[in-house]
Parts: sequence; structure tokens; C-alpha cells
Amino acid sequence: MLKLHHHPFSPASRFARLMLSEHDCKADFVVERPWERHQEFLALNPAGTVPVLVENDGPPIVGAEVIMEYIDETRGYALAERALMPKHPEARAEMRRLVHWFERKFHDEVTNYFVHERIYKLEIPSSRGGGAPDSQILRAARANIRHHIRYIGWLAGSRNWLAGDKITFADLSAAAQLSAIDYIGEVPWDVDPHATAWYARVKSRPSFRGLLADRVTGLPASPSYADLDF
Amino acid sequence: MLKLHHHPFSPASRFARLMLSEHDCKADFVVERPWERHQEFLALNPAGTVPVLVENDGPPIVGAEVIMEYIDETRGYALAERALMPKHPEARAEMRRLVHWFERKFHDEVTNYFVHERIYKLEIPSSRGGGAPDSQILRAARANIRHHIRYIGWLAGSRNWLAGDKITFADLSAAAQLSAIDYIGEVPWDVDPHATAWYARVKSRPSFRGLLADRVTGLPASPSYADLDF
Repeated sequence: MLKLHHHPFSPASRFARLMLSEHDCKADFVVERPWERHQEFLALNPAGTVPVLVENDGPPIVGAEVIMEYIDETRGYALAERALMPKHPEARAEMRRLVHWFERKFHDEVTNYFVHERIYKLEIPSSRGGGAPDSQILRAARANIRHHIRYIGWLAGSRNWLAGDKITFADLSAAAQLSAIDYIGEVPWDVDPHATAWYARVKSRPSFRGLLADRVTGLPASPSYADLDF
Repeated sequence: MLKLHHHPFSPASRFARLMLSEHDCKADFVVERPWERHQEFLALNPAGTVPVLVENDGPPIVGAEVIMEYIDETRGYALAERALMPKHPEARAEMRRLVHWFERKFHDEVTNYFVHERIYKLEIPSSRGGGAPDSQILRAARANIRHHIRYIGWLAGSRNWLAGDKITFADLSAAAQLSAIDYIGEVPWDVDPHATAWYARVKSRPSFRGLLADRVTGLPASPSYADLDF
């Protein structure tokens, strides 16, 4: 049995949920609030970050990129031609570069700002830094996301899927990041039609349904969030 | 033929050099100064970061963690029992967790501060932010490194090598980060004897010789840097 420790609006956790769903894995889900720094969770992952996957009470599989390799090593074979990891080492390297780009660069320059300021700070007590969003940080994120959407549009326009002609983990990683931002209506979908068309294709996959059902208490989803023809 | 685009004091580049050397790979080395943002280099890696590996003029393999997977996939088999990637998916996940820890968390909380303030700022023109180190940043890095050294000591003391009973990529990643800091004499080797003994073992490997010969113009190495019995 698989157990995923996650937060519904952590983009890396959303990537992990998409991977599990694409591989038809049933799992138990445990919601963690990383800012609470529970001893029990820190014993699983001393970095205190989500997601963390545990299989059959085995050792923790920590972080979305590590979970990706683990799921591919243990379940990728069963997907046969639908496998989300390319076969050739060079194609795998390009896909991993993009996953790293979205999990690190896009996250640090865009998603983390939006999600922390607009969603996490609703849940974090004011004694630990919760409260109103910082408008300067949101402005920076709004400037940064436009460059990234153009890059996604360039990839999607020249390659069909982000890492090549088939869907891979890179598409799930990018779409997971965007989905968290789309909830609060901060994705500028008018910047690049290739990016928008690509996201509509990923969003219509059955694996996406769970994410589209998530809601934040006191913060309704943007009109486009769960709309497949946005 | 392999070509590595790197900077001698970028810790991720040092990790890549150790990997190449451990796999007996000959390579051409091209020094990049990421802050110069050369168009030619940005075409290889739009993120503008080092290291980037190119094999036979093929597509760029970008970033230390992606290079690690590529080298293991294309050369790991030839190392047989000396392979730096464990065989079991759970052991691989633990090793990847640690590599991610050192390449991201340790880098962001410690190495990047030290290397940027003490080494890169000697090379960066003052118009682009070069100049004297920021003493507040150095103070933060000095506080952070002590926690990390204790964690390395705990791992080395309970497992022999960081990820288990054999040397893996995790040891090279951690040692590459530490080596850049050791050059400027900022590793508190008195914090944990297990960490010190572990580093002495990694440092004495033939793959480390290239790193120990590196020098920064105008900044001599700390007395312990190239001393195998420090």
C-alpha cells in the first residue's frame, strides 16, 4: 500500500498525485502543513517538505523528483508504450532538465510566491507569518510568469508535448505548477495560444480530476480552474 | 567525446567533475562565468547555470543531477560492483534524496552564500554586483553550516558512507559542496569527528585530485584545502 504525505496546494505534491494517478496507483493521502513542523513528519523527512511517499511502511521516498524516479523504476514497465519516461538517455536527460526547471526554477520564481502569499498565508497563524499577501511579491511573480508561459508556449508549439512528441513527466510537472496558480486566477492565458492549448490537453486527462476538485476554505476557485474549455 | 561546461568553484560543477573522473571519462573542459550570460551558452542552457555536459555534439545534459542519471545510465554498468548508484529502488531513492539535499538545500543555505560572497564576487565586475563580501550573509552561512555538518556526521557515523554501506553519488555531491567551502577555510571541522573522517576518506580518492589543484587568483587556498591529513 502506498501512502502520500502531501498538501493539496503544494505544486510538487500535485505532481506526485498526477504521477500516482497516471500509474493507476491507489494510495492513502495524509495532509501535512509543512510550516507546523511536526516531529513525526520531520522524522520521515528532516527537510520538512512535501510530498513524501511511503510504500508498505518502507523507507520514505522524499520529494517529487525522487518519487518520479521511484514510480518509473517500480511501475513504469507496466505502462508499456504509455510510459512517462522516454527510453533514450538523451531524451530522458531533456525531460529531467524540464522537470528540474519546473520543480525548481519555475517554483522559486513563480509558483512559490503565488501559493505562499495567496493560499498558505490563509492557513498559517499570524504568529508564524500568516496574513495578508505581500503585493510586491505578487507583482514580481506576475512579471516572472509571463516569461515562463512564453517558454512553455515555445516548447509546446515546436514539440507537441513539452519534452518531445509524447507526453512525459515534464508535462505533469509543469501542469501541476500551473494548476495551483490557475486556482487563484493568476495564469495569463492570453500570453501564448500554444501554452493554453497544451494545458487544456493535460487538464482534460482523467488523472487531473482529483486536482480540479480541490478547494481552499474561504477562497473560491477562479472561473477557469475546473473548466475544461477555459 | 565529452565536453563539460563548468566553473571551477561552482559546487555542482565540482560534483560533475568527480562523476566523470570516477567513471574514467576523458572530457574537454570549458569554463563559463554564468553571470556573463553569453548568448552561446544560454542557447545550450536557457537557465544559464553550470554544469552542462555535451556528448559528441548531442543535446545538452543540463545540471548535476541530470548528469548523474545520464552518466549512470550510459556508464554505470561498466563500473560493476563499483557503481555509484545503488541497485534497489528504495536505496536509490534514499541516495537521490541526499543528492537533492546537498544540491539544493545545503547549496541554498550554505555553499551558495560562501562561494558567491567570497569567490564569485572577486570575478564579477562591480557594475554587476561584484566587490566586497556581505558580512551578514557570511554570518548566516556560518550558522547554517554547523547544522549541516552535524547531519553529515550523523549519517557518516551510522552508515559508513552517507547513503549506506557503499560509496555513492551522494558522497560525491556532499564532498563537492564542502570542497568549495573548504578552499576558503569556512568548514568548521571541529563540529563532528565522523563528518571529518568521512570527508578525509572522500578527499583521498584519486577523483578528487583535480579539484585540489584548483586555485582562485588573488585568494590562496586555506591550509587544510589540499592536505589529506588535515
